[in-house]
Amino acid sequence: MTPSHPKIEQPRLGEPYLLTPGPLTTSYAVKEAMLKDWGSWDDDFRAMTRELRSSLLDLLGDGADAFDCVPMQGSGSFSVEAMLASFIPPEGKALVLANGAYGQRSAQTLQYLGRDHIVLDKGDYLPPRGDEVARILADDPAITHVVAIHCETSSGILNPVEEISEATYAAGRKLLIDSMSAFGAIELRPSDIRYEAMVSSANKCIEGVPGFGFIVARKNELEAAKGNSHSLSLDVHAQWAHMNKTGQWRFTPPTHVVAAFIEALRAHAAEGGVAGRGARYTRNRDVMVAGMREMGFETLLDNRWLSPIIVTFFCPADEKFVFDRFYNLMKDKGFIIYPGKLTVVDSFRVGCIGQMDEDVMRNVVRAAKESLEEMGVTNAAPPLRALEERAKLAA
Amino acid sequence: MTPSHPKIEQPRLGEPYLLTPGPLTTSYAVKEAMLKDWGSWDDDFRAMTRELRSSLLDLLGDGADAFDCVPMQGSGSFSVEAMLASFIPPEGKALVLANGAYGQRSAQTLQYLGRDHIVLDKGDYLPPRGDEVARILADDPAITHVVAIHCETSSGILNPVEEISEATYAAGRKLLIDSMSAFGAIELRPSDIRYEAMVSSANKCIEGVPGFGFIVARKNELEAAKGNSHSLSLDVHAQWAHMNKTGQWRFTPPTHVVAAFIEALRAHAAEGGVAGRGARYTRNRDVMVAGMREMGFETLLDNRWLSPIIVTFFCPADEKFVFDRFYNLMKDKGFIIYPGKLTVVDSFRVGCIGQMDEDVMRNVVRAAKESLEEMGVTNAAPPLRALEERAKLAA
Repeated sequence: MTPSHPKIEQPRLGEPYLLTPGPLTTSYAVKEAMLKDWGSWDDDFRAMTRELRSSLLDLLGDGADAFDCVPMQGSGSFSVEAMLASFIPPEGKALVLANGAYGQRSAQTLQYLGRDHIVLDKGDYLPPRGDEVARILADDPAITHVVAIHCETSSGILNPVEEISEATYAAGRKLLIDSMSAFGAIELRPSDIRYEAMVSSANKCIEGVPGFGFIVARKNELEAAKGNSHSLSLDVHAQWAHMNKTGQWRFTPPTHVVAAFIEALRAHAAEGGVAGRGARYTRNRDVMVAGMREMGFETLLDNRWLSPIIVTFFCPADEKFVFDRFYNLMKDKGFIIYPGKLTVVDSFRVGCIGQMDEDVMRNVVRAAKESLEEMGVTNAAPPLRALEERAKLAA
Repeated sequence: MTPSHPKIEQPRLGEPYLLTPGPLTTSYAVKEAMLKDWGSWDDDFRAMTRELRSSLLDLLGDGADAFDCVPMQGSGSFSVEAMLASFIPPEGKALVLANGAYGQRSAQTLQYLGRDHIVLDKGDYLPPRGDEVARILADDPAITHVVAIHCETSSGILNPVEEISEATYAAGRKLLIDSMSAFGAIELRPSDIRYEAMVSSANKCIEGVPGFGFIVARKNELEAAKGNSHSLSLDVHAQWAHMNKTGQWRFTPPTHVVAAFIEALRAHAAEGGVAGRGARYTRNRDVMVAGMREMGFETLLDNRWLSPIIVTFFCPADEKFVFDRFYNLMKDKGFIIYPGKLTVVDSFRVGCIGQMDEDVMRNVVRAAKESLEEMGVTNAAPPLRALEERAKLAA
């Protein structure tokens, strides 16, 4: 069967696939777009910035008119900090929904900012649910904003942002979403899910190279953000106002990374936008997870919570399985996998995003099988306590 | 005569030279280094980060042992903000020496940070002098830090950081230097000029592409910076401690931009380091300024203050000279020049940095001559009030 998506390129000889949530494997065409220098104040580059902003807004679908897009230099976490500081006013209070490293990082950021906040900490992977959010908001009228992580890549869980949004707005509060690793592959239409602002970055599901992030926010929130930011560099309002006035970034943009991103956005559209991109990643995940399960590997999460972004597997119980060796055997075969982040049991992660399709994922499964054989592991089943851990999710 | 520096490449057909203080024209080899994806936690990339940090420290010469290098995502201004917030403690007070946009930006950053500060504002271009600094420090014992701009690209002036440093330490205070557009082409040896920390960025005299900056600071200052920063993303201590512990950046680095920078650092060393790079830029400036003066153009600054980074020229008095037209005529000929930033008289700037040599600069002069002819300008002499303005410098 011919895949329905545009041709996926092989990385050049000797280059491994990056099976991670970023930096990820990008197309050669995306990288080739960096072979030119641009003056950032020149008309040619301003046109690129315009295209970048409007193409990202197009991904919102209906209701995009109420929003604007503000690119921001730095890694994705810089954009998260910029969003939190710009939209939660100094007198506001945030509820951070945490079930992994990225929720914790938002809480830590608010700590730096001196913004009042509480954390609903669900541990390594349990999802924050709508009814929990409703309860907390009812108990604490001081809370003005809820901060949610769309896909928490620590575990790979796709958090239920729809019910979180419903609970937030039913209580008359505002929602900010960290959609870093999900935006571009999973719909986040304001006509379906209400929110004030979200962030993502160049090097996730749009498949650009790393170097900037972007904030997509309601125009009235952008207006109201004036004077809120703790930081000149990360001031979303100032960046937005300057960009709208001059067509330029306030400070030197990563011009080559922007050029690569324009190319990536065009490829994203050619693949069928969010739906097409999401469909390829979903097939990647399905093929990979099925193959891994055949060997005895178990996923941390039930199918219901598995994102098409990255999947956590328990390490096998077999003592002959040593993760560092497995990592290197996989790397030798051309695949870089990702260590796990669970605190209770050993785990590792395999990403489904980037320039890869189901054929590549079949090779990933084959490489895992061969690596297990080379280690003398005959069954990849996890230890009992891993399954006990997982049972908490069903409870 | 054969130039003593390694071969300078022509930009590809249709690509103009960027005669600006950045983004600037980089070599094709630098851009080609971006044609590969890296996993940022992988050993291969960690080795690149190590090389980046140690190569930058090598540029300090004697005394480098007391310093460490901390790269930081974002534009150069992000690194300036990171430096100011991390090294000036909340109870400190800064004296900002301003003679242009970058001094003003440092003051504005301190305003955001809520750090006490005063500004010695010398206007568009007059240099802050050592005796002035000494006087202000004697009058205000609360001042703990002096913030100086090495090359203020608003005018192109090379500020006298040596005498500023002497005055600062004679009064028992500490110096922080924004050497954004100078480091790598102008020596900043701690054995000659005492300072606690300095910043620069990838896309200046090292001739990388834009996407990150770096802070070079004394190790004891880095230790003492713990807890000072207002920002998680821009916390220099946290970035430094994490990098020393893990070999990784805290948050996703711009991997491709880092790869380009490694290539740029190697080319910098091959050219003879800071001395070699500075010599080429100086020849660029000398050839260009001599040619422009022949047409009647006048520089804002006397030779003594001219940096080899960027030069400000007064616009000709002739009414037939229209800057926008001159910009486009120059662009048509393959040279992008830079608008001026003087508030009192019309001006423009021509950069001397990037992948250009004196042959290129002769073509710049020729293009300027032809552009004047096309506009019908026979003499490029500035208006009288421009010369009156300049006379202030001599006074």
